[in-house]
Amino acid sequence: MNKMLMKQFSLLLLLQLTCYFSSGRCGNVLAWPVEYSHWINMKAILEELVTRGHEVTVLISSASIFIDPSKPSAIKFEIYPASVTKEEYENFFMHFFGEWTYLEKNSFWTYFPAMIRIIRKYFEISLKFCKDLVSNKKLMTKLQESRFDVILADAVGPGGELLAEILNIPLVHSLRFYPGYAMEKHGGKLPFPLSYVPIIMSELSDHMTFMERVKNMIHALYFDFWFQAINEEWSQFYSEVLGKPTTLFEAMGKADIWLIRTYWDLEFPRPLLPNFDFVGGLHCTPAKPLPKEMEEFVQSSGENGIVVFSLGSIIRNLTEERANIIASALAQIPQKVLWRYNGKKPDTLGPNTRLYKWIPQNDLLAFITHGGTNGIYEAIYHGVPMVGIPLFADQPDNIAHMTAKGAAVRLDLKTMSRTDLVNAVKQVINNPFYKENVMWLSTIQHDQPVKPLDRAVFWIEFVMRHKGAKHLRPAAHDLTWYQYHSLDVIGFLLACVASSIFLVTKCFLFCCQKFVKTGKKKKE
Amino acid sequence: MNKMLMKQFSLLLLLQLTCYFSSGRCGNVLAWPVEYSHWINMKAILEELVTRGHEVTVLISSASIFIDPSKPSAIKFEIYPASVTKEEYENFFMHFFGEWTYLEKNSFWTYFPAMIRIIRKYFEISLKFCKDLVSNKKLMTKLQESRFDVILADAVGPGGELLAEILNIPLVHSLRFYPGYAMEKHGGKLPFPLSYVPIIMSELSDHMTFMERVKNMIHALYFDFWFQAINEEWSQFYSEVLGKPTTLFEAMGKADIWLIRTYWDLEFPRPLLPNFDFVGGLHCTPAKPLPKEMEEFVQSSGENGIVVFSLGSIIRNLTEERANIIASALAQIPQKVLWRYNGKKPDTLGPNTRLYKWIPQNDLLAFITHGGTNGIYEAIYHGVPMVGIPLFADQPDNIAHMTAKGAAVRLDLKTMSRTDLVNAVKQVINNPFYKENVMWLSTIQHDQPVKPLDRAVFWIEFVMRHKGAKHLRPAAHDLTWYQYHSLDVIGFLLACVASSIFLVTKCFLFCCQKFVKTGKKKKE
Repeated sequence: MNKMLMKQFSLLLLLQLTCYFSSGRCGNVLAWPVEYSHWINMKAILEELVTRGHEVTVLISSASIFIDPSKPSAIKFEIYPASVTKEEYENFFMHFFGEWTYLEKNSFWTYFPAMIRIIRKYFEISLKFCKDLVSNKKLMTKLQESRFDVILADAVGPGGELLAEILNIPLVHSLRFYPGYAMEKHGGKLPFPLSYVPIIMSELSDHMTFMERVKNMIHALYFDFWFQAINEEWSQFYSEVLGKPTTLFEAMGKADIWLIRTYWDLEFPRPLLPNFDFVGGLHCTPAKPLPKEMEEFVQSSGENGIVVFSLGSIIRNLTEERANIIASALAQIPQKVLWRYNGKKPDTLGPNTRLYKWIPQNDLLAFITHGGTNGIYEAIYHGVPMVGIPLFADQPDNIAHMTAKGAAVRLDLKTMSRTDLVNAVKQVINNPFYKENVMWLSTIQHDQPVKPLDRAVFWIEFVMRHKGAKHLRPAAHDLTWYQYHSLDVIGFLLACVASSIFLVTKCFLFCCQKFVKTGKKKKE
Repeated sequence: MNKMLMKQFSLLLLLQLTCYFSSGRCGNVLAWPVEYSHWINMKAILEELVTRGHEVTVLISSASIFIDPSKPSAIKFEIYPASVTKEEYENFFMHFFGEWTYLEKNSFWTYFPAMIRIIRKYFEISLKFCKDLVSNKKLMTKLQESRFDVILADAVGPGGELLAEILNIPLVHSLRFYPGYAMEKHGGKLPFPLSYVPIIMSELSDHMTFMERVKNMIHALYFDFWFQAINEEWSQFYSEVLGKPTTLFEAMGKADIWLIRTYWDLEFPRPLLPNFDFVGGLHCTPAKPLPKEMEEFVQSSGENGIVVFSLGSIIRNLTEERANIIASALAQIPQKVLWRYNGKKPDTLGPNTRLYKWIPQNDLLAFITHGGTNGIYEAIYHGVPMVGIPLFADQPDNIAHMTAKGAAVRLDLKTMSRTDLVNAVKQVINNPFYKENVMWLSTIQHDQPVKPLDRAVFWIEFVMRHKGAKHLRPAAHDLTWYQYHSLDVIGFLLACVASSIFLVTKCFLFCCQKFVKTGKKKKE
């Protein structure tokens, strides 16, 4: 017994020492994730934290869909019972994605209100989960007693900042985007000069015509307005829980570090703040050998090479008509095609195309993608030109950026014909322009002083080592909106100038009058 | 002969290989430095570049004072004849520093115009050097033929950006600050929200009262106005040389990377852009053993420890009265004092104080400093609390920042008494508040993902590898000032709103009139 204890002690000591040398000391990390592709990205960070000897606990609800706690992993899961069932939650998401994908996008005035309605539903269901968690006194006590050193939260699923406040621990946000950058702007205090920073969901580039800049500003105003409204319910809930008046933006703004899941290959250069780091592509790794059957199929392509087609981790089925158009288009190209697809096998599927449930992105000729951020980064990492068929969320913007940078051709899922798809694939494969541009983006992605994953982990460890990173947080958080924009100062200075002009004019008129009077008297 | 050639060839090959592995390939760097402390900082970068196998050529005038090409070094110097003699140039600087140091600082309305006059003289003499260089056809041809890969230029001494344009090579700026951040704002397109970013030379912190924010805005407007005027002459000269209309701000804005010589320990967090990196303290290195005589003196201090007093690389003499006050104050403290001083030995010098021409900053108890950026960073690096006696330029701001962060006590050279100095030194030594705060700043400085010197070199090598870094440069550079501030868009939208209101009102009135008329008719 004593020997076993000794052994355990030695092991613990070794782990502690490994940790000590890598980052100061072993930390205790709590994670607040979001489903689907968001989880793929966060998991890469959490696994690296575990590798470096930290303890990681992921907080998920009993309705969790994509995050699978049963898979063997060094990551611990804390599951809280939710008032929503898994089936309801999955149905919600399927409806959410489907509705958004097939929205009529032609008119700003119909598309955006419909989109806001859809987004609103997401925040409503997220609030339910958050309420379930906070009202679970037993779990909250357990979390309190676990003495976490930091919480890593996906900012698009609010709740992490509330936990950070309740548990009184530092907060690191992981974020791809908030619609219209509303959270980055109001929560993070990032400046967004609308003249050259295209607001996300506007699908614009950094070089805009006058009317595009008008469009950009309307987008910004629109999202600002709606997110103030959406957040009201959250702000009320946070205020009740914390027992003090607060807002969602204010609570989010308490983050020590924001890890944004893009970089300057996907994004256009724009202002940032010292507590923002751009760690896009952190989940990318060098290509691994393919499963045998897949490898043989790929090898059989010979000189022609392969094309990969994937619409991401969410969309499993297309309408039969769309699937057939895609299949018949793919049948027309000389390359072998790997298609990630879960639905019914299309009738027009050619012999050069095979369906798979999952595909790694190795040495491809072209990638037909829905434009999710993870997929885009895999294409950039491996230097593969893209045919983009965006569906919803940031995907249209991602493809718009890739098109602007000459690394992709864009198609529309609802309207594209077989010929459109064939031509687009041929174009990105045969025109060296696309390959050259994506290779340059790949160079940018690889040629960084520190790899994105290492930077993400560095900042989480930094926050654990020093119990925060307040020295990187701008004082803008302590100002009201009119103070932040210096409206009070501008008003005061204008008032001073006006008063001065008034006084000088008065004095001048007074003197003139005196002079005229004296003149008159003299004349008399 | 053949053997020697072989040997030389092998050596060359070895050097090329070293270089190949460290950064892709050996580069050819041209440097455009500024005198005094600026050179100390740039030299640290250049020496590192040489260590990594790059070839470095520094372009200096025959009047150069502080930059000594005769010292043995792997750095090459290209000296061009100047129309100003070394003596004239040194006299100019002594007058420049002396005048600025002893300016009456109490009133904004007298201090700033006097300061602008002094700064103007600096830019006038700098323009002379620049004209001397560009008109030297032989040298310009030689530079053209040298095929440099990049120019590293200290942005406070204009000329580097002109050379970059003429030689058609990428440009990396090294910069501490431009008065009022005029260049960072207009040349670099950095946003400066005046509500929480204290404009340099305002001596404010990031937490400002209403009146301080008013002061900050007045400072910004003041410097903007004056620097537009100062730059006019430069813009004219650049336009003539390049044969196209341009401005100094525009030419400076072509920089690929800006290496700012501060970090978030000295600075308050503020917005940056992807092509700005904050590499403050890159010249700092771990303490080296002291010369024997100095070490013995230091050792003799025993438990009391030592204090270092230095007013930087420029100020060599003080007035006799000031020197005596300082000497008598230093005589009153129990510590041993190392004083970096070149002037006449003060009569009141105590036995605990020794004068030196140069002092390394090792394990000190306290550092009495003028607050130059290099010195501040040495104090931060080694975690030494400061007594700040700022003289001119960014020194008052540096000390204001250190005071706001609780790492320094501030004194005024012109008015401080013996007691003031004694008390200040005792305070920073005996009150643990100062030591704790400066140790936190030291932690921030040391706990970075990549050391500042490595980051600086990385970006210079990046620019050489890829012939620029245009992907990090914001599109703001392609906009006019009113486009940048979206004034045209705001105007257009306001006009739209006004027109709508007008039309709606007109329609409403028209309908009302109709209604009234119909009513009247009915009545009739």
